[in-house]
Amino acid sequence: MKTYRVAVLAGDGIGPELVRVTIPILRLASYLYGFELIFEEALVGGTAIEATGKALPPETLEICKRAQAIFFGAVGGKQWESLPPEKQPERAALLPLRKTFSLFANLRPITCYPEIIDASPLKPEIASGVDLLIVRELTGGIYFGQPKGRVLTEQGERAIDTLLYDTSEIERVATVAFELALRRKKSLTLIDKANVLESSLLWRKTVKEIANNYPEVDLKFMYVDNAAMQLVLKPTQFDVLLCENLFGDILSDEAAGIAGSLGLLASASIGASKFGLYEPAGGSAPDIAGKGIANPISQILSGALMFEYSFQEEEAAQAIKDAVRDVLKEGYRTMDIAKGSATYCTTEEFAEKVAQKIEINFKKKKQEGS
Amino acid sequence: MKTYRVAVLAGDGIGPELVRVTIPILRLASYLYGFELIFEEALVGGTAIEATGKALPPETLEICKRAQAIFFGAVGGKQWESLPPEKQPERAALLPLRKTFSLFANLRPITCYPEIIDASPLKPEIASGVDLLIVRELTGGIYFGQPKGRVLTEQGERAIDTLLYDTSEIERVATVAFELALRRKKSLTLIDKANVLESSLLWRKTVKEIANNYPEVDLKFMYVDNAAMQLVLKPTQFDVLLCENLFGDILSDEAAGIAGSLGLLASASIGASKFGLYEPAGGSAPDIAGKGIANPISQILSGALMFEYSFQEEEAAQAIKDAVRDVLKEGYRTMDIAKGSATYCTTEEFAEKVAQKIEINFKKKKQEGS
Ligand SMILES: [Mg+2]
Ligand SMILES: [Mg+2]
Repeated sequence: MKTYRVAVLAGDGIGPELVRVTIPILRLASYLYGFELIFEEALVGGTAIEATGKALPPETLEICKRAQAIFFGAVGGKQWESLPPEKQPERAALLPLRKTFSLFANLRPITCYPEIIDASPLKPEIASGVDLLIVRELTGGIYFGQPKGRVLTEQGERAIDTLLYDTSEIERVATVAFELALRRKKSLTLIDKANVLESSLLWRKTVKEIANNYPEVDLKFMYVDNAAMQLVLKPTQFDVLLCENLFGDILSDEAAGIAGSLGLLASASIGASKFGLYEPAGGSAPDIAGKGIANPISQILSGALMFEYSFQEEEAAQAIKDAVRDVLKEGYRTMDIAKGSATYCTTEEFAEKVAQKIEINFKKKKQEGS
Repeated sequence: MKTYRVAVLAGDGIGPELVRVTIPILRLASYLYGFELIFEEALVGGTAIEATGKALPPETLEICKRAQAIFFGAVGGKQWESLPPEKQPERAALLPLRKTFSLFANLRPITCYPEIIDASPLKPEIASGVDLLIVRELTGGIYFGQPKGRVLTEQGERAIDTLLYDTSEIERVATVAFELALRRKKSLTLIDKANVLESSLLWRKTVKEIANNYPEVDLKFMYVDNAAMQLVLKPTQFDVLLCENLFGDILSDEAAGIAGSLGLLASASIGASKFGLYEPAGGSAPDIAGKGIANPISQILSGALMFEYSFQEEEAAQAIKDAVRDVLKEGYRTMDIAKGSATYCTTEEFAEKVAQKIEINFKKKKQEGS
C-alpha cells in the first residue's frame, strides 16, 4: 500500500484544535481510497518557544525532513509579539521552513461555493462561479531584496527597500503556474506593473518564454491596480493568477475577502518537487482559540490540497472537497458563517459531519458500481 | 468679485466631450455662488502631439502657470501607444505637470450614493454608507526610486526596482491627509507593510510624529494586504486612507471597483499650495469617444473637487454634488450604469439635467430664505 509520511505542526491558537479534528478526516479518506498516512507530530511556533526556546526546534526540522509533506496549523499570538521580529513565531518558523524546503510558490485557491455564496460580500450574481487560483512567488521580491534599510540624511531619514528578481526565480514559479493551469481552465494571467517597474518587464519577458512550452494555456497580462479592481467587478474572468510576492500577498487577501472569510480558504506552499507545506489561509486567531467555534473548513481543505499536490491522490482530495460542500448544502455552519436558517455547529461537530459524509458518499459510489 | 483662472486641458478620447459639457455647469455654479471663472483652453496629450509634436507643449505649461487650477480631461489612445514610453501622452504630459507644480498628493474620494448603490458589485448592505478618501503619495516610491534597471547575470538577468522615501516626502503628504481628515470624520488609517518593509517603518514613525499636531484625528495602522480584504468586507470602516504611491495605486482602483465604475469618480492631484489638477478617475476610453455615451459624473465631480480644494468655494462644490445626486435620484443614467427602470441619458443630456438642478435647488434655497 502506498504510504505517505506527514509532519504535523499544529502550532498555536486555533491551530491545534483545527488540526486535531482534521486528522481523522484525512485518515478516513486515506483508508477508503487505498493509501496509508503516517503522522508525526512536532512542536512549532509560540508553543515550541515555550517548550524549547525556539520557534522551529531542530527535532521539528528533522521530522519535516523525513516527511513528504508538512500539515501546518497556525502560529503566533499576543504573548510572543514583544520578541524581536526575527524570533517571533511567524518569522522564525515559517521563513526557515520555506527556505529549507525551497517552497517558492504559494497557492491560494478561491472558490465561492453556491452553498455559502451568502458569505461573500459580493452580490450573488457576481460571486457565483468564482473558481480561481492565485500562485504567489513566495521567497523573492521586495520582502527580501538587498539593500534594505534606513540612513540618516541632512533633512531626516531615508528608507530603502529593494524589489529584485532573477530570471531563475521567475522561471520556476511560472512553470508551477503553467502546470497548474493545464490541470484547470488553461488560462493564466500574469499580474504586474510593467508600465513602471523594471522587475515587471523581466517577469513579462520570462513568462512569455515559459509560455512557449505550454501552447494550450492562454496567457494574459494585467496591471496589478486593474486586477485589484477586476477582482471586485468580475472575479469569474480569472483562472490562474501568477503574481510576484507583494502583489500576490495583496491580491490573495483581497480574493479571500471576496470568498467572505479566511476561515474557508486553504493554502499550499510548494517547490519544484512534490514536497509541500499545507496550512489554512487564516491566522492563529488566539481570541477564539479553545472555544470550539473556529471554522475547520480551511484546515480540512488544506488536507485535500496536500492529497492533490503532494500525493497525487486526486480521488481522495475530491472526496473531501465534495463532503465539505455536501455538509454546507445540508445547512450546517460554524458560527463565523452561520446566517438565517443555518444549523449551528462546533468545530468538532462540523468536522465529524464531513467525515460521515465522506463515508456515505464512498458507499453510495460503490453501490452505484463506479 | 473673486476670480479664479482655470487652465482647461481636455486632451484625448472622451476628455473633450466630458470637459465641454462640464464647463457650463461650473460657470453656472460660479455665477450663482458669487465668483468668476476664467477658462483658458490648451492642448495636451495625443491631440497636442498631433498639433505640435509634444504631449505638453510649452504654451500649455505657460497657461497652467498663469492659472490657479488645471481642469483636465484625459489623455492617451491606441495611435500613440507605439511611441517610446517617455513620449507617450500619459507619461509625457501628466508626469511633468506633477513635477512642475509639485503635485505630490493624489486624492480619490469614493462615495457609494444610495441612488446608485446598484452600480456597486457589493451587496447593498455592505456598500451603503461608503464615504472614504484615499490620499496617495504620487511622486515618490518604487515608480521613481533609483537604482532601477536590469543587469545580465551568469544565469540570466536580474531586475531591480527601488522603493525609496525621505522623511520630507512623507511629512508633506501626511500633513495633507491629516488636514483633510479634520474636515471629514477625523479618522486616518495609514496603509503600510511595516512587518516587512523598512520604508513602511519610516512611514509609521513620521506619520506618528505628524499626528502630534492633530490630536483630534484618530490614527490607525493597517497592513496593505489586510486593507485590500477589509475594503471588500467592510468598506464603511474607513474615512481617510493614507498610502504610499504603489499601495495607493492598487487600493484606489480596488475602491473604484467597489463604487462600481471609474465613470463615477473624481480625482485631484494637489501639493502644499492650493494649486491642483482635477481629472476624472477613468481614462480616455477611446472606444466610446464621440458617441455621446460617456458618463460625465466623474468630470463634473472633479469640478466640485476643484471648487472645494483650490478655491475653497465649498457651497458651490456642495451644490454641484447635490445636483448630481438629485438627477440620479430622479432615475437618469448614462448607459454605463443604466439598469432596470432608469431613464437613459446621453452625456450632454445628463450634464444639462445637472445644470438645471443646480439652478432649481438654488432658487428653492433662496425662497426658503436660507
Ligand atoms: Mg497577506
Ligand atoms: Mg492605477
